[in-house]
Amino acid sequence: MSDSAAIRYIHANRGRLLDELKEFIRIPSVSTLPEHKEDLARAARWLGSDLERIGMEHVEVVPTRVHPLVYADWLHAPVKPTVLCYGHYDVQPAETADGWSHPPFDPVERDGTLYGRGVADDKGQMFAHFKAAEALMRTAGALPVNVRFLIEGEEEVGGDTAECFVRANAERLSCDVVLVSDTALHAPDVPTLTVGLRGMVYAEVEARGSTKDLHSGFGGACPSALVSLCQMIARLKDEDGHILIPGFYDRVKPPSQAELNSWNDLRFDEEVFRTRDLGSSVLAGEPGYSALHRIWARPSLDVHGIAGGFTGPGGKTVIPARASAKISMRLVPDQDPKEIYELFERYVRSIAPKGIQLGFSVFSLADPIVVDTGNRFVEAAADALAEVYGRETAFIRCGGSLPIVAAFERSLGVPILLMGFCLPDCGAHGPDEKMSVKDYFRGIESVTRLFELLGD
Amino acid sequence: MSDSAAIRYIHANRGRLLDELKEFIRIPSVSTLPEHKEDLARAARWLGSDLERIGMEHVEVVPTRVHPLVYADWLHAPVKPTVLCYGHYDVQPAETADGWSHPPFDPVERDGTLYGRGVADDKGQMFAHFKAAEALMRTAGALPVNVRFLIEGEEEVGGDTAECFVRANAERLSCDVVLVSDTALHAPDVPTLTVGLRGMVYAEVEARGSTKDLHSGFGGACPSALVSLCQMIARLKDEDGHILIPGFYDRVKPPSQAELNSWNDLRFDEEVFRTRDLGSSVLAGEPGYSALHRIWARPSLDVHGIAGGFTGPGGKTVIPARASAKISMRLVPDQDPKEIYELFERYVRSIAPKGIQLGFSVFSLADPIVVDTGNRFVEAAADALAEVYGRETAFIRCGGSLPIVAAFERSLGVPILLMGFCLPDCGAHGPDEKMSVKDYFRGIESVTRLFELLGD
Repeated sequence: MSDSAAIRYIHANRGRLLDELKEFIRIPSVSTLPEHKEDLARAARWLGSDLERIGMEHVEVVPTRVHPLVYADWLHAPVKPTVLCYGHYDVQPAETADGWSHPPFDPVERDGTLYGRGVADDKGQMFAHFKAAEALMRTAGALPVNVRFLIEGEEEVGGDTAECFVRANAERLSCDVVLVSDTALHAPDVPTLTVGLRGMVYAEVEARGSTKDLHSGFGGACPSALVSLCQMIARLKDEDGHILIPGFYDRVKPPSQAELNSWNDLRFDEEVFRTRDLGSSVLAGEPGYSALHRIWARPSLDVHGIAGGFTGPGGKTVIPARASAKISMRLVPDQDPKEIYELFERYVRSIAPKGIQLGFSVFSLADPIVVDTGNRFVEAAADALAEVYGRETAFIRCGGSLPIVAAFERSLGVPILLMGFCLPDCGAHGPDEKMSVKDYFRGIESVTRLFELLGD
Repeated sequence: MSDSAAIRYIHANRGRLLDELKEFIRIPSVSTLPEHKEDLARAARWLGSDLERIGMEHVEVVPTRVHPLVYADWLHAPVKPTVLCYGHYDVQPAETADGWSHPPFDPVERDGTLYGRGVADDKGQMFAHFKAAEALMRTAGALPVNVRFLIEGEEEVGGDTAECFVRANAERLSCDVVLVSDTALHAPDVPTLTVGLRGMVYAEVEARGSTKDLHSGFGGACPSALVSLCQMIARLKDEDGHILIPGFYDRVKPPSQAELNSWNDLRFDEEVFRTRDLGSSVLAGEPGYSALHRIWARPSLDVHGIAGGFTGPGGKTVIPARASAKISMRLVPDQDPKEIYELFERYVRSIAPKGIQLGFSVFSLADPIVVDTGNRFVEAAADALAEVYGRETAFIRCGGSLPIVAAFERSLGVPILLMGFCLPDCGAHGPDEKMSVKDYFRGIESVTRLFELLGD
């Protein structure tokens, strides 16, 4: 089969399409840090302008209480299906000092790979939707399907703006399928559809021991908020990663034998995963489960940071009055985030050492997801990917969470396509985040082909 | 007995003597923070100038690899004893945001109390020695005893500069007694000599789990340095404060029955201690020991800060590659800091979860001390204090550590007087550090009377 005009357009415009992505990455749209608020607004305006240029209609940068949404549509294919393309323009915090080889907001191309904060999560991936629409519009003057874009700026802070917007505008957003590119390929050159996501509970626990910081000359008679917090964390999971919260595993539904078999067929190399993706001397986790099973279909619990006391250079003998820990749990079907949070809080309260007062705050709750695969949209997506990558599409789950996906399922009641193009070791949320330049273009082509196939 | 000329001088110059202390406190001589290096040098020069003005001789600001020492002497009383006055001009870090009611380096007087970083630890106390010498020199043109001053700027960072200087200059520093004012009164208006100090081991442990920060979508299969560190800390002591390091208590020597009886006579109110000094809802610690016993004659272990991961606002789902904890242990006779450190490191290595690599660094090692009380110097000090405060002097221990005291004992082989004037709840190392203005002046008077009694 020969390339369509749109695919030829993509090939002919590689340099500019890559430069535009670099320009997008240079906007440090770190949603969790208040000092970047204007950068978020700038990123939203930048996307709106690009959608205008492409020829999308009803382009709107929607002000919200936190960071703006970007909406646009093109609806001139009345008998064809409507695809809602979702993505997020906000990124995780990043500083060169975190271990980056170069400044994170000044993208660098090296050996066919583009490095920069957000290139994989999610700028490079969501922008592929834009560029697919551009290629089709520029070559045919129209799209083969109806398309809506909904792009948000609070994904990395667990904000609920997009979710509320979807719930409140379900009719206006009516569509036949939702396309999300915020997941990864299973392995290099393996076209992949993700059919399961873990859910999440993210909370902060504060422990208070005394009303003021104390000199450790009082050590032995005063409560220590920080040590007590460590003692509580140590009782959240054992050294095998088995979580000790009573009732935590009650609703965990094991994957079917058919799905387990399909994971076996993926020939996943745990040694490569351990050394390349994790950079770890051991594969940690619960005995009796494969690594894929552990991250795709078993819940997990991690601590992301502990504040309180003195962490500057040298030694300060302070016993801090209070200390707090950021703790998250990844959930699997059929765990309920609200119920899990309640079990968590109740358990932590029950194991607090005497003299320790606790405070809790919740950052996010997200449902675990298993995507329905029995529809023509999944079929078209698998075909488009197979065509561009030249081999059969793999169906996998993902250890991460995309809270918005559950909202789409609930509010719009349509199938979801999780069609990602970055690699499992893309460094999302860590230093040297990267995306293969080749995959950026294969992403644009795959979305183009998906639209073409759905419009046939 | 009527006041001496020197005591009258102190009364007549109260305003200026207090203003000079405030000026000293305004120098932010935070030894642990590199950006304050010049402030340390400035504090040293400021003290040198004051010693010159007082009429001390051989005044020298001694350059060292870290922060300067200040030395001076006055040795014109050949048949009288020689007193070596020790103190430190460096202070702990402090920022208003730590919970101070006002900027920590802008001292404020309120209701007869002076607030500011270092007012108690140790600026207000060591400066009392200076002002006692001034009062005697200004009124008699001479001191009743020979006096040396040795002031350092690395006490709060566990530096060994002063200790090395004492060891290398033992002959030049020859004296009959060492006077240190870096401890506290047992209670308000109770004249106090401290006769025991805990020793210390202060170390940092770093745990490494992976070679890079990871996204918690990998949670369940990758090691977590931060959770592992918490699990190890949780195994250092139990919830009663009993330390779980094998062999840790082997050399602990209980206090004599006589000393325990004398502690009973102090009528120490544990409820006041708990509420006022600790600000805690419980009195923590090992069952079967009084609060005084726990902090004076039992070893303790505390964690002062944990670094690694994300502690900014909001949620970041990073699994940090490495995490580190600042951990100290307070020791009692006859524990040996070097041996305890080795037991600590060996034990921590033995409990490291699989996949976790460890790194250790030691900030300080200090011997525990019990001071000899059977000499004329202790007698004179107890008398001087009793005279100024109008009641019998109490003999207590202290839960803190003064590493230099062991160095004086070892290198100079003379008795040590630990004669402190701040209150147990002075807030040393915490916010709103304070000293009663009355005690600052009683300190100056007590040292003046000590010199007079030793010169009789």
